[in-house]
Amino acid sequence: MVSLAQIISEISYEMQGEKDRGKTASYIPSLAQVDLHHWGMAIVDRDGKMYASGDSHKQFSIQSVSKVFGLSLALDLEGDDLWERVRQEPSGSPFNSIIQLESEHGIPRNPFINAGAIVVSDILVSKYGFQGAQGALLQLLNPLVSNIDGMFIDYELAQEEDETGFRNRALTNYMKNFDNIHNSVDETLGFYFRQCALSMNCQQLAEAGAFLMSAGINPRNGKRVLSTRHTQTTLALMMMCGHYDGSGAFAVRVGLPGKSGVGGGILAIVPGVASIAVWSPGLNEKGNSLLGTKSLERLVQKTGWSVFRY
Amino acid sequence: MVSLAQIISEISYEMQGEKDRGKTASYIPSLAQVDLHHWGMAIVDRDGKMYASGDSHKQFSIQSVSKVFGLSLALDLEGDDLWERVRQEPSGSPFNSIIQLESEHGIPRNPFINAGAIVVSDILVSKYGFQGAQGALLQLLNPLVSNIDGMFIDYELAQEEDETGFRNRALTNYMKNFDNIHNSVDETLGFYFRQCALSMNCQQLAEAGAFLMSAGINPRNGKRVLSTRHTQTTLALMMMCGHYDGSGAFAVRVGLPGKSGVGGGILAIVPGVASIAVWSPGLNEKGNSLLGTKSLERLVQKTGWSVFRY
Amino acid sequence: MVSLAQIISEISYEMQGEKDRGKTASYIPSLAQVDLHHWGMAIVDRDGKMYASGDSHKQFSIQSVSKVFGLSLALDLEGDDLWERVRQEPSGSPFNSIIQLESEHGIPRNPFINAGAIVVSDILVSKYGFQGAQGALLQLLNPLVSNIDGMFIDYELAQEEDETGFRNRALTNYMKNFDNIHNSVDETLGFYFRQCALSMNCQQLAEAGAFLMSAGINPRNGKRVLSTRHTQTTLALMMMCGHYDGSGAFAVRVGLPGKSGVGGGILAIVPGVASIAVWSPGLNEKGNSLLGTKSLERLVQKTGWSVFRY
Amino acid sequence: MVSLAQIISEISYEMQGEKDRGKTASYIPSLAQVDLHHWGMAIVDRDGKMYASGDSHKQFSIQSVSKVFGLSLALDLEGDDLWERVRQEPSGSPFNSIIQLESEHGIPRNPFINAGAIVVSDILVSKYGFQGAQGALLQLLNPLVSNIDGMFIDYELAQEEDETGFRNRALTNYMKNFDNIHNSVDETLGFYFRQCALSMNCQQLAEAGAFLMSAGINPRNGKRVLSTRHTQTTLALMMMCGHYDGSGAFAVRVGLPGKSGVGGGILAIVPGVASIAVWSPGLNEKGNSLLGTKSLERLVQKTGWSVFRY
Repeated sequence: MVSLAQIISEISYEMQGEKDRGKTASYIPSLAQVDLHHWGMAIVDRDGKMYASGDSHKQFSIQSVSKVFGLSLALDLEGDDLWERVRQEPSGSPFNSIIQLESEHGIPRNPFINAGAIVVSDILVSKYGFQGAQGALLQLLNPLVSNIDGMFIDYELAQEEDETGFRNRALTNYMKNFDNIHNSVDETLGFYFRQCALSMNCQQLAEAGAFLMSAGINPRNGKRVLSTRHTQTTLALMMMCGHYDGSGAFAVRVGLPGKSGVGGGILAIVPGVASIAVWSPGLNEKGNSLLGTKSLERLVQKTGWSVFRY
Repeated sequence: MVSLAQIISEISYEMQGEKDRGKTASYIPSLAQVDLHHWGMAIVDRDGKMYASGDSHKQFSIQSVSKVFGLSLALDLEGDDLWERVRQEPSGSPFNSIIQLESEHGIPRNPFINAGAIVVSDILVSKYGFQGAQGALLQLLNPLVSNIDGMFIDYELAQEEDETGFRNRALTNYMKNFDNIHNSVDETLGFYFRQCALSMNCQQLAEAGAFLMSAGINPRNGKRVLSTRHTQTTLALMMMCGHYDGSGAFAVRVGLPGKSGVGGGILAIVPGVASIAVWSPGLNEKGNSLLGTKSLERLVQKTGWSVFRY
Repeated sequence: MVSLAQIISEISYEMQGEKDRGKTASYIPSLAQVDLHHWGMAIVDRDGKMYASGDSHKQFSIQSVSKVFGLSLALDLEGDDLWERVRQEPSGSPFNSIIQLESEHGIPRNPFINAGAIVVSDILVSKYGFQGAQGALLQLLNPLVSNIDGMFIDYELAQEEDETGFRNRALTNYMKNFDNIHNSVDETLGFYFRQCALSMNCQQLAEAGAFLMSAGINPRNGKRVLSTRHTQTTLALMMMCGHYDGSGAFAVRVGLPGKSGVGGGILAIVPGVASIAVWSPGLNEKGNSLLGTKSLERLVQKTGWSVFRY
Repeated sequence: MVSLAQIISEISYEMQGEKDRGKTASYIPSLAQVDLHHWGMAIVDRDGKMYASGDSHKQFSIQSVSKVFGLSLALDLEGDDLWERVRQEPSGSPFNSIIQLESEHGIPRNPFINAGAIVVSDILVSKYGFQGAQGALLQLLNPLVSNIDGMFIDYELAQEEDETGFRNRALTNYMKNFDNIHNSVDETLGFYFRQCALSMNCQQLAEAGAFLMSAGINPRNGKRVLSTRHTQTTLALMMMCGHYDGSGAFAVRVGLPGKSGVGGGILAIVPGVASIAVWSPGLNEKGNSLLGTKSLERLVQKTGWSVFRY
């Protein structure tokens, strides 16, 4: 078998040649300006070995990928009580849709669409307070990552999203109307935007996700981050809902639990085998990284890592 | 490790003790009358060995589980052209919903909701004709099953569904309005109801699904049934859409690609490991077998077979 | 005041000069071929005097305008029991939408959208039988119209719509699924298409609608056609729902209860004053006659006939 | 003919005997506490003569009835440009629904559902500023009302709604996301809540609406308040959308342009004949005054004032 190092380098070469690189998210000015030519990938295997290529050391805004970490914290806190405030089903709708909230009385379909992730943020703010929730998030991530240089919450970006995020503000007010937001809209949403404004690079992100490959154990120190069952739940929901209304296509093409962000990052997990982070800022029409998805598709073709593969 | 024979016998024992056995589908008289106390399970492992318990030899109507076989035939015929007539995404709606068809111009969300499976049926009728399509289906299944005794298309049941299936007739006419049905509504729907009226037992169904565990190869004769890629696609779609708007919960609880039928059957696949059929006629509120799901959940807990498990 | 004869002749002249004449309905071949240059108008005043201009003697397919007559028959039969099978509210959706039927369990929003008019047809078929319902319709119309030459049900057109009307067939099957259609889909829909295929000219149509101006009395013979209350109900529903999702704009621009048909006809009523029929086959984007609406707008400006006018 | 004084007194007597008086709006505490036994009615005829009965002198919160006055101001300012920011169609949905805003890109269906009225408020805030808009509203109303005692904006109630009106805040943020709100959400919504918090009695409200009966002229001083055309537009929209998803039933039962408020008030206009205000705080299931509607139905039966009546 070809080595992982060689595979990742082949993919890097292929992606450099891609003409159609998608489009950056237009509605967040700072993200809109990111150079479409960036591409990076990092893989941590079960032994903790890192394989990386391209701009894998360059920081980007992980945005909705952060919802995986928020969910892990909330699941650890609330356990299955969480499912009374957010459901476990694919929404079949865009990430920022408000339609289902009306007929479903303010209970979002899953924790990875915006509405659901905002409920998760609200749970963390209820537990830790607005400042404390940010601390809890970083306390989860720091021990997972070997080199935290450049990993930070980009307050300026969070502020920018806070000032222009009328749609998320609509979602939050709407859920508060149904008593599914327990804190002030400003605090819950403030934390949500800060969580999304996490700046990481591919190597950090792959390491941060490694506990999901290892049944909830931080492979760097052997400590449990999340119960085995909640880890499986997180992976199942990544598979079902991690790419919004493009989740089905991602499952067919890649066949791994993954979570995308509008900054162009994707975290994908091969249970027991690898944690993968890929970044390319151009998005497809569903809001998922165009070349990030393609890179993962190629990786799975070359390694056979799909969970649906014999 | 406890043997599979013992595990399946433990589950059988547990299920006998369950008080809440769900409800049979009320809208199809013949199915409504089935005794709620039936329960059967059969597992075929990668070596072709069969483990079975309970009413695993008793025939039941596989109903929507048949959509897996219809899809396999159509994918083999059409390849990726199929995706121009049916999409690959969870619908987020009940199995018989017509709402999305309006805004999405007659293209169903996936091949496992009724509308999508009817399009698949239409493809088979276009290729083989109304009678021929039934033959093609049986020709797919016969070599997969070691003992075909009692495996047949229940014409009487098909007729009953044909006469009362106004909702499916509405779906079909609606798609025909968008030119996404190419044959007469009567023929396409006639074949669809016959496919759904397949009568099998758990042992036959587990064997019939075994090619999906084996990357598309019929383990009984080593012949390819479906390409590796299309097999993975089928599994991915079973995972994403196999339990309608209960697919997310099934992924969380069971973590396997599966397809349910309103007759109380479920086919679940552990890629490379096992093909599992379970039957218990009582349904939960999403229309999936209540104890069938519970049985699979217990099986996965005892074997660790979830694709999300390390 | 300028005479009605002069007003109608001015409008005729204005409409001749209109360049943008809309588009004929594309989905019914016979209607698609009608010459866009046709235009006719006829007004019957409270004394039974007829004012007419343009192609007011030329036959056209009244299509959905016929729903007014169907409703009158059904209201006379069922009285307020009718409202258990069809509601009285604007739908806010296109004339052939199926979406609301799902959440509202097969009860259409009003008797003028297709689904509602099909329920009305079903009531007439239940009462009179398939053939009898056609007879009842003609028996309603004949005494209202002074010269019935050329007024007939165009069976060929009805047949054409029957063979291609998959969307209406979907609606009917869908409602039958909810037990809101009591006859066979073929019979109910067969009558519906025949009712819609009524061929009349403007003079006949204006006369046929005159009982609605006269509190339910046929002005030609003084006989009651419909009770005063049901007449008001019919007018109220024409105002609220007579132009589908263009009803609000029609109320603002014209301010009269009216009912349009996809053949380009509109019947509008000035209670106590006039019954107006106008025909121009080109439709606007909502499926209502473009110049028909404009003609009525001009008529109301010149006469002050809006019900909202002091 | 029985005199109007006698008719109104008969209705008062009938309404006193009604057992089922509906329910007050539960979501606004101050409104929830209002005594269900209140009932008042006032009619101003074309000569300015006032007929009144019951609690016609008692103040209540006119709530959404105020949308008529806001619309009049905005129509006078913007003319038909207004229709680029709000449409003229019945919504077919509850007053506070957010669903259509998603598919219709932030353009509300009409100026009387909450979303539409908030856009109207935004227009007034753009023109006059937050404080100025309140002044403009009172400047419209003061010359229309003979005795302004007790007519005021209830800031406390407005504040209460502002603090709990998460659903309206959701709507406003949602529309701002589509650039259909030009001021800050706080200012636009702040004015909206103050407009709704207008406290008036039936006599004042009937007088305030009298210009709508008189083609836009204030009958008290002969000055034009609104152009004839915009007055008709306002009346048409009251007819089509004034009672939310109960507008069709109101048109059938009452047959007059009317606007209801959640405080239990209704303003109804008989063009050229009368301006009617009725108040009874208990609401029906659509959020419109139960006995207010019944009173108007009785009034129209006794007077023949329906616009659909010969």
